[in-house]
Amino acid sequence: MKNRKNHVIYFATSNLNKIEEVKKILKDYPVKIKHIDKKKPEIQANDVEEIALRSAAWIAQEVERPIFVEDDGLFIKALNGFPGPYAAYIFETIGKRGILKLLDEQMNRKAIFKSVIAFCAPKKDPICFIGVVSGQISMEERGAYGFGYDPIFEPENGPGKTFGEMTMCEKIRYSHRGKSVKKFVSWYLESTTE
Amino acid sequence: MKNRKNHVIYFATSNLNKIEEVKKILKDYPVKIKHIDKKKPEIQANDVEEIALRSAAWIAQEVERPIFVEDDGLFIKALNGFPGPYAAYIFETIGKRGILKLLDEQMNRKAIFKSVIAFCAPKKDPICFIGVVSGQISMEERGAYGFGYDPIFEPENGPGKTFGEMTMCEKIRYSHRGKSVKKFVSWYLESTTE
Repeated sequence: MKNRKNHVIYFATSNLNKIEEVKKILKDYPVKIKHIDKKKPEIQANDVEEIALRSAAWIAQEVERPIFVEDDGLFIKALNGFPGPYAAYIFETIGKRGILKLLDEQMNRKAIFKSVIAFCAPKKDPICFIGVVSGQISMEERGAYGFGYDPIFEPENGPGKTFGEMTMCEKIRYSHRGKSVKKFVSWYLESTTE
Repeated sequence: MKNRKNHVIYFATSNLNKIEEVKKILKDYPVKIKHIDKKKPEIQANDVEEIALRSAAWIAQEVERPIFVEDDGLFIKALNGFPGPYAAYIFETIGKRGILKLLDEQMNRKAIFKSVIAFCAPKKDPICFIGVVSGQISMEERGAYGFGYDPIFEPENGPGKTFGEMTMCEKIRYSHRGKSVKKFVSWYLESTTE
């Protein structure tokens, strides 16, 4: 089965890092990921699932084919869940340095990274797959791999490195996105090959 | 004309502070504000106008009558516009204290408060009215009036007080919301009384 890329699945995103990561996660699966560069109108909800489900439904309708989207959120316990589903906007404004500043002198650095894949076919209801990883916010930025908050997130049960210190292959063994993508594709393959 | 409250306008919001403030702003206008407690699906956009326009269009359709909504944003220059249109979510998580912490040791404390009123009648296009006030983020919280970020926002050309140190009557002389509401209602009265 390996390397028989006989299932084409469309991934709607404007984040090229995510495309690369999803392809790496699926390198041993019989699927081929194709990119749709579709800007989605994200709703403002405090819930990553709701954002992803609505985006997927909207885009599937627009492009008239089955697609999936991926949304994620970083929820820091001592900050009441901040930056939450607005992680992307907050990354562009106050960034990793802002997060570290907010946690200055804070001993409780627990955080959760959550990835939601929402899949939708036109005129069907969207469905979602969730991947979660617990961990902590590091005391300082470490590592140059990855993107976004990777250099300040250290997964639990990992080798004590931040995602920014892991190669992509190492990161996807622990990551929220590794989990959500694999759940989704396992379901997809099961439901398309009777 | 004063006190002849002959125009009824529906304000869709779930924020009771806003209702009270809008009524106070309009106390000398011949309009009566009625509250519609409608939770709106806010889109995630970096632009308060777009959020307000879409919310208004959606709610007008839902409730089948003309309504207005009000959305606001706080844009802090040294934080690249953070918290921006997500001021409400960020208020609930890191709050005023988080903002002050992010600006710790920052001399540039310039900020803009923006209020957008969007009005929409069913099957019509929504229209918006903008009120902006420039000012700065204070060094610490001051005052117990108002709500949200009022105790840390000091308007330019004001009496050197934060909005939190002003009574509602005083605040609305300077505030972004005072401006947007008056612009809207002046237009409304002009367009409904031939």
